Amino acid sequence: MALAFGTAGSSAQTDRLGTAVVGRLFCRCAGRQHRGDQAPSAPWARCPQWPAAGTSGSRLGLPDLEFVGGAPEARSRLVASSSADQVVTEAGANGAQATVGRTPFTPRPLIKDIKGGADGGLSNVGQTFTVSGWVRTVRSQKSFAFIEVSDGSTLAGLQVVLDPKTTEGYSLVEESQIHTGAAVRAMGELVASPGGKQKVEIQAISLTLLGPCDPGTYPLQKKRHTLEFLRGIAHLRPRTNTIGAVMRVRSALAMATHTFFQSQGFQLLHTPVVSASDCEGAGEMLQVTTMMSTAMRGGSADAKAAANVVKTDQTGPGPSLPVDESGGIDHSEDFFGRPTFLTVSGQLNAEAYACALGRVYTFGPTFRAENSNTSRHLAEFWMIEPEIAFADLDEDISWAEAYVKHCLQHVLETCSEDLELFEKFYQKGLTNRLQRLSSTPFVRITYTEAVDVLAKSEKAFEFPVTWGADLQSEHERYLTEVAYEGIPVFVTNYPKDIKAFYMKLNEDGQTVAAADMLVPGVGELIGGSQREDRVEVLERRMKECGLNCEEYWWYMDLRRYGSVPHAGFGLGFERFVQFVTGMENIRDVIPFPRYPGHCDF
Amino acid sequence: MALAFGTAGSSAQTDRLGTAVVGRLFCRCAGRQHRGDQAPSAPWARCPQWPAAGTSGSRLGLPDLEFVGGAPEARSRLVASSSADQVVTEAGANGAQATVGRTPFTPRPLIKDIKGGADGGLSNVGQTFTVSGWVRTVRSQKSFAFIEVSDGSTLAGLQVVLDPKTTEGYSLVEESQIHTGAAVRAMGELVASPGGKQKVEIQAISLTLLGPCDPGTYPLQKKRHTLEFLRGIAHLRPRTNTIGAVMRVRSALAMATHTFFQSQGFQLLHTPVVSASDCEGAGEMLQVTTMMSTAMRGGSADAKAAANVVKTDQTGPGPSLPVDESGGIDHSEDFFGRPTFLTVSGQLNAEAYACALGRVYTFGPTFRAENSNTSRHLAEFWMIEPEIAFADLDEDISWAEAYVKHCLQHVLETCSEDLELFEKFYQKGLTNRLQRLSSTPFVRITYTEAVDVLAKSEKAFEFPVTWGADLQSEHERYLTEVAYEGIPVFVTNYPKDIKAFYMKLNEDGQTVAAADMLVPGVGELIGGSQREDRVEVLERRMKECGLNCEEYWWYMDLRRYGSVPHAGFGLGFERFVQFVTGMENIRDVIPFPRYPGHCDF
Repeated sequence: MALAFGTAGSSAQTDRLGTAVVGRLFCRCAGRQHRGDQAPSAPWARCPQWPAAGTSGSRLGLPDLEFVGGAPEARSRLVASSSADQVVTEAGANGAQATVGRTPFTPRPLIKDIKGGADGGLSNVGQTFTVSGWVRTVRSQKSFAFIEVSDGSTLAGLQVVLDPKTTEGYSLVEESQIHTGAAVRAMGELVASPGGKQKVEIQAISLTLLGPCDPGTYPLQKKRHTLEFLRGIAHLRPRTNTIGAVMRVRSALAMATHTFFQSQGFQLLHTPVVSASDCEGAGEMLQVTTMMSTAMRGGSADAKAAANVVKTDQTGPGPSLPVDESGGIDHSEDFFGRPTFLTVSGQLNAEAYACALGRVYTFGPTFRAENSNTSRHLAEFWMIEPEIAFADLDEDISWAEAYVKHCLQHVLETCSEDLELFEKFYQKGLTNRLQRLSSTPFVRITYTEAVDVLAKSEKAFEFPVTWGADLQSEHERYLTEVAYEGIPVFVTNYPKDIKAFYMKLNEDGQTVAAADMLVPGVGELIGGSQREDRVEVLERRMKECGLNCEEYWWYMDLRRYGSVPHAGFGLGFERFVQFVTGMENIRDVIPFPRYPGHCDF
Repeated sequence: MALAFGTAGSSAQTDRLGTAVVGRLFCRCAGRQHRGDQAPSAPWARCPQWPAAGTSGSRLGLPDLEFVGGAPEARSRLVASSSADQVVTEAGANGAQATVGRTPFTPRPLIKDIKGGADGGLSNVGQTFTVSGWVRTVRSQKSFAFIEVSDGSTLAGLQVVLDPKTTEGYSLVEESQIHTGAAVRAMGELVASPGGKQKVEIQAISLTLLGPCDPGTYPLQKKRHTLEFLRGIAHLRPRTNTIGAVMRVRSALAMATHTFFQSQGFQLLHTPVVSASDCEGAGEMLQVTTMMSTAMRGGSADAKAAANVVKTDQTGPGPSLPVDESGGIDHSEDFFGRPTFLTVSGQLNAEAYACALGRVYTFGPTFRAENSNTSRHLAEFWMIEPEIAFADLDEDISWAEAYVKHCLQHVLETCSEDLELFEKFYQKGLTNRLQRLSSTPFVRITYTEAVDVLAKSEKAFEFPVTWGADLQSEHERYLTEVAYEGIPVFVTNYPKDIKAFYMKLNEDGQTVAAADMLVPGVGELIGGSQREDRVEVLERRMKECGLNCEEYWWYMDLRRYGSVPHAGFGLGFERFVQFVTGMENIRDVIPFPRYPGHCDF
């Protein structure tokens, strides 16, 4: 992707060494010599630490960014042949002066840049690079030492070869200071590797230890740890091959989500996290409040905070909450002046924007307070919820299918190395499966057909299959995994009594225009529907579901004024990551999982 | 951006009319004729509603998506010349059969597609389009009627010309059913417009009223409404020119954020929203709990829920919260088993991942429970927090500057029509200002220099300027707006006592390697720092700040094992939208604002 930073041809203002001149008094050594002790009147002076020009990342074809200033480390990224060679002083009003300058900022090359491309980095051989990262392995032989350094940009690291005769800092190896997990910086020439495992390696001129790592206490050893053990060190587990790969795939899936929707005229919409309503009309919610701290202070913030009395009695009841006239908790002194919760869905809000901007999508956190300790549920998870004006259920399904396929293709193109790891350790045949699904039409059947297929199957289900009952996980997985042999299945037109109030009632009066997308291994990945756009039908359905229409006045307004057919769906992002990586437990595909009793890190 | 959906050359399986055959029993009319009343054994039959092939969006160069199935409206988007012309039946196991098919899914063209390009749509003249949207204005003349239709994809709508002699549905105009806000669908030929206001218009063959809009009660009239009034109808305000434009720019800024960081090797990281720690060690937080509902049920869920007794007394205290041995609230029965809050920053979590993956960025909601009813604060807002391993403060600032400039350029390139609106109604000279800033080096001065500049100014500040005191909003705005004439200013190396514990202590022992970016009109847009990577210095600083090191054991671990220099920053996304649009009140740049006493919609 080409990125432009700054107008082409804009003046890159630098001093004679291509070093940016920044601020009248701001030393370019970034304060390592002078920081903080400069008097405002001190003259600018070149820092003696300034070494000669080093490796330029721009030789790798990385985009140049604007760059002002430079620390010793950053300096090595400066492009020596800057296009302008002058110092410009801008005078502001009131005598404030700043010498401003700019030279192209070429970010430090990452290992994936150095090793990138179809040739595995061979085209970069002969260049000098500085690699910063963490030690994966150290091997000492008679005449050389080898360390594999990872900077997290790719699964495989870069081999650094240390020669006692030519590598400055080799003594670190001799003194046994370089262990797995230690942070190092190595500078040297990229050479073709004589070994078969990698195509290129760094012949180190120097090695620096940035941060040691005590092998006696470091929780991550070279051996394979269980995923359960790693959950207990969620702050360190991204350093493992598995979790690192999961998180790179997760990031790639997120990017694919944005490129898909934005290229199709969808606007990203940030729907609120704190909400006064419960979209689904079901499920326990996490409450948001400032009243508990107020109660601990002895009552309402206004009236009693000053007293700061903690009304607790270790033998009696604790601090009490105020009640209103109806006997419920009085939220008039709460932060929002009413009961508020963490949202379970952004859909209702997204509908308001779809009925104005046409096509929108959300990508945000959603919450459930259900006490489910399963490998499929989290209390906090991320959802993608597109909402499309003028769409019916079929168009909705088509968007869902195209979106999922786009993401699969993006991951196949950009994360092949990570997918190989999942293939090897977690799910055989993964890559082939993703490739097949990215180009195979998904199945579409009605709920009625699904019940028929299940009833005719010879499988003994734990839950009976009858028309009118919701499909259980075992039914969903049978459909996609067995009946349709691993192809994702859209099941449409469910009985209205097992679906939400906002789904469009079909003409039969019994089913709604809903669709769930079932995928192998995960079950329900997507739930969607056409929305009820007839205000009188919606009102009737809400009453049937025991909802108070007045609380949803604004939602009804969307049907009162310029109502349009519209549809949308929600995709559980963690389940999508599970589906693409083959990871079995949802707690391993989100950086810091939240579930009952667990809010660590 | 080119998007590929499905393998090139993969078989598009369709029936003879290019209509997808979907599921054995699923009618392609999407149920408008048959939905829900089909017996599982009913044969598939072509729907009589199926009209002849209509406009193809692919003629506009829109990407084809996979498409299966098609409703009457969706069908008009089908490409007639599908590459394959066959029906394929896949037999699954256990007798389950599904006829699966595919034909390219070309999304309905939006008005921005029809009018797009440098020629304002002239190259599409002669094609027939179906436009669905909302009526902005209706004008009836003697021989014609004109309606401006908007679908939200662009600021300006598309003019539809209705001719009583040739437009089917013209009676809707005569019967006065077409009002501002009504939803309509118009089909007709795109012609060059004889009027000067637009280059093209639709000569309508048919007009359909999808959803009426009663002008007597519709809150949005043609007149200009105040932004304050619009906040009261946040569900309808995206239909206005101003809020629609704000939200398109907001979405573009979000996309620019992702393209910038992902192209630079950053991994998107979803840090948790529910947190047990307070990153900044300051500020009121919103608490997350299920204990209030438990208290209303009469106590702990396990022990007392069954009794379901509401222990309220309208004259006495309300339900009480359990206390632990120390007299604090006992959270052992709370959902997470401990006190939990809505996060104020994802930084600490992001540091853990930067110390594994190298470069990460967050883009998520953050929260403050401060009782500030200002035009600059929200209780719920979105932050972008990049974290970069092996970076010092100077590199950090360079990333921040490059990121902001990339976003400005993206918006200038993609949102020029929306920017013109802000220019006209909200901030004169806006576009020129953004253009200038996107290619002008930002100023970098130290805090010490900033204090000097302020002390030497002739301006009478409300708050005195002394070394050691935090810069107030009036100081920040003076620096960027007056002293440096509208150029953004990075102020670096603040006194440690006014900054957070995690910022790297400079060698002077008095200042920290922090940087705030100040921009005109907004003040602080970005706050960043190099992080303290020395475990013993960090421990000392935490104790000075009154923090309990044991609670941060995992954060300290990052310094114990392979510690590296690293830096990051946080950008308040709503302030960024304000900066780019010139909108004065932060409540107008987020879809549904949350602030004290306000959690509506």
